[in-house]
Amino acid sequence: MDKTASTDHPIHELLAQRWSPCAFDSRPVSREDLRCLFEAARWAASSYNEQPWHYIVATREEPAEFARVLSCLVEPNQEWAGTAPMLALGVASLNFKRNGKPNKAAVHDMGLAAASLTFEATARGIMVHQMIGIVPDKARERYAIPAGFEAITGIAIGYLGNSNQLPAHLRDRDLAARTRRPLREFVFGGTWGNPAPVVQS
Amino acid sequence: MDKTASTDHPIHELLAQRWSPCAFDSRPVSREDLRCLFEAARWAASSYNEQPWHYIVATREEPAEFARVLSCLVEPNQEWAGTAPMLALGVASLNFKRNGKPNKAAVHDMGLAAASLTFEATARGIMVHQMIGIVPDKARERYAIPAGFEAITGIAIGYLGNSNQLPAHLRDRDLAARTRRPLREFVFGGTWGNPAPVVQS
Repeated sequence: MDKTASTDHPIHELLAQRWSPCAFDSRPVSREDLRCLFEAARWAASSYNEQPWHYIVATREEPAEFARVLSCLVEPNQEWAGTAPMLALGVASLNFKRNGKPNKAAVHDMGLAAASLTFEATARGIMVHQMIGIVPDKARERYAIPAGFEAITGIAIGYLGNSNQLPAHLRDRDLAARTRRPLREFVFGGTWGNPAPVVQS
Repeated sequence: MDKTASTDHPIHELLAQRWSPCAFDSRPVSREDLRCLFEAARWAASSYNEQPWHYIVATREEPAEFARVLSCLVEPNQEWAGTAPMLALGVASLNFKRNGKPNKAAVHDMGLAAASLTFEATARGIMVHQMIGIVPDKARERYAIPAGFEAITGIAIGYLGNSNQLPAHLRDRDLAARTRRPLREFVFGGTWGNPAPVVQS
């Protein structure tokens, strides 16, 4: 299934090809590939190079651990994410290590790292589906996540499966066309809401 | 100047090559290239496809507008960012358009979009330096940013300049080696702090 973005301006093929499926194949992702995905996250930018990102991960080859990560997702995400060969929770350190002060960039920089991981995955033919739908308190309790850290996201990683085998509401989600607002609706200049000269034709 | 990351595991060259300079060249970035950078941001993933990202942008070809964006950065960032040919403020919509409820993923998804923009820039030989050091209230006042939206980041965009012409503290920052914590310090399995099997050698 090809869901390459229909772009108004050319972008790198690995950005255009990325999307977030609910259907994952049972085929495992190799340990070598998985390491490279987290290595990609590792080299993301972060405010003061704080690297606030942490991950709690499990593969389906460790069934008890996999079930534990899965249990930290909200139920609608458990419905499909359990078929992915790897699940991860993204956990942010909320304060700077060097001085204990709050890091305003922590959650933003989790996003930078997640995008790097996803880009590396796309380059390797691997799909990533990120979720904000997790239960942070359950993650804290099940993994003894200390104060000052908070689970922010879930991440399903694997090869694309057959969307036609999903329940109807998930199949429709996978098969729907990808849509986005045009640039003039979010790239402003001079004042709020006014399309910037650079995006005017 | 080559600051390609010294990785423990192979990653895509565009991720390895990316870094955040303080030295920008005065050469402008073409309108075509700039559009493609924001197009890349446009196609990022977001929770419920909310696309919470907005940008207020100005190029140095519009001096008054450029000065206005620059004035919304904290002073230590104004010191170097004023030499970039384009500055942007990243502004998040904090609530879902469809129901007005808070979007927990808004700031995270700003990070996803920023990373896509940066990846596209790297592919085009363009550098990006993101900043959390902005003054959100000043941005709100100067651009009439409405309630429910908040300026989160600054983004400097341009070609690499000569770091040796920077003041010493900025030059040292540009010339320093890139360092990151190893995977075993942030990819956990089973319990917090325990390196996951996938990152054990």
